[in-house]
Amino acid sequence: MTDELSRTERTTLRRHSDRGSKHRTDLDEILRESMICHLGVLVDGDVRVLPTAFGVDRDGPNEAGTVYLHGSVAAQSLLSALDGDVCVTFTLVDGLVLARSGFHHSMNYRSAVIMGRARLVVDRAEKVRALNQVVNQAVPGRAATLRPATRKELAATSVLALGLDEVSVKIRRGGPVDDPADVSSATWAGVLPVRLALGQVETAADSLGTEVPTDVRRRAQLPG
Amino acid sequence: MTDELSRTERTTLRRHSDRGSKHRTDLDEILRESMICHLGVLVDGDVRVLPTAFGVDRDGPNEAGTVYLHGSVAAQSLLSALDGDVCVTFTLVDGLVLARSGFHHSMNYRSAVIMGRARLVVDRAEKVRALNQVVNQAVPGRAATLRPATRKELAATSVLALGLDEVSVKIRRGGPVDDPADVSSATWAGVLPVRLALGQVETAADSLGTEVPTDVRRRAQLPG
Repeated sequence: MTDELSRTERTTLRRHSDRGSKHRTDLDEILRESMICHLGVLVDGDVRVLPTAFGVDRDGPNEAGTVYLHGSVAAQSLLSALDGDVCVTFTLVDGLVLARSGFHHSMNYRSAVIMGRARLVVDRAEKVRALNQVVNQAVPGRAATLRPATRKELAATSVLALGLDEVSVKIRRGGPVDDPADVSSATWAGVLPVRLALGQVETAADSLGTEVPTDVRRRAQLPG
Repeated sequence: MTDELSRTERTTLRRHSDRGSKHRTDLDEILRESMICHLGVLVDGDVRVLPTAFGVDRDGPNEAGTVYLHGSVAAQSLLSALDGDVCVTFTLVDGLVLARSGFHHSMNYRSAVIMGRARLVVDRAEKVRALNQVVNQAVPGRAATLRPATRKELAATSVLALGLDEVSVKIRRGGPVDDPADVSSATWAGVLPVRLALGQVETAADSLGTEVPTDVRRRAQLPG
């Protein structure tokens, strides 16, 4: 597999092409650090944007990797996603870029947009692996510490697979870029860094006395 | 204006309706704490989900309030947004909910989905106010400390307005909800709280010696 992300007409940036990244490592980092994604789908002809959990599998049937989304079998939006191409977007805000003019205000961010036709996962083994990856996205390694999913739980859950084949990655880093005339003004400029921060582990009231597992303790130390 | 959010067929929750909120104060809080939103739009027949900055105006022409999005006049996606209804989604992740089974893993979050027809802002005064609100979303009060936008900057920027009329707010709070049979197992359950955290202010290299303004220092103290 190549280290370069593939491009299509749809994923070629028309604006700020200097912010585009073709590096698969950048995509991997965005997927690793994200907690949710936003699924874009047509429901009864209307565009809907739905925040949702996800999992990633690098070792699945698709060489470029696969993103898995899940939901109740009763969720109309997930089934609507099978009727046409979808768009799944991952966004990490890294900083508020405060320039000397409103016009040059910006954000530091890393984003990935995945487009393509989603596939309903019917193979039981793939479904189990996908759902485990959704859990592991929250806390790496946690799925292995839980009881297996029951037949009933699997039947109640729809899983969609979207290949990481058509991907656009955009990244902005660094400080404000001001007009030269503004730089000489007395106006302050800079960046306010932003990150997803995890707080102290909160053990459930009916779980007190159970030791916090290693994977959860490790996750609480990780940035976002 | 009523304190209750209006509902339509499109914004009535079909799933997890217990997570729906009809309180305008919840919407206000989500809009105040969000740094970005995700705009869903049809471009050449394909759904696109684009992360973008935004501003909010409570005192504009629309009684329920208005969300403003902006971009370069050259950005195709923003103009495509005028061809049909759009969907703009705001999501704050508040916690990773770690249950005793994969099935009951969840997240604590607050999300708002706004649907409707966007309007291109042509009135100069409204455009200026909208762009100021985008700056103030990042740092409340900062717009007033900057030079005014130039005629050229205003001409280079498209601003879209979307009324807060058709809104769906969803909130999940609290700990994991496990199957009774799982609660008696030795598996740990709990929550990892999540928040957007701001780091130390970074003054731009060419701005060193300029004092960090009060509004920026105040913003750095605020949560997210």
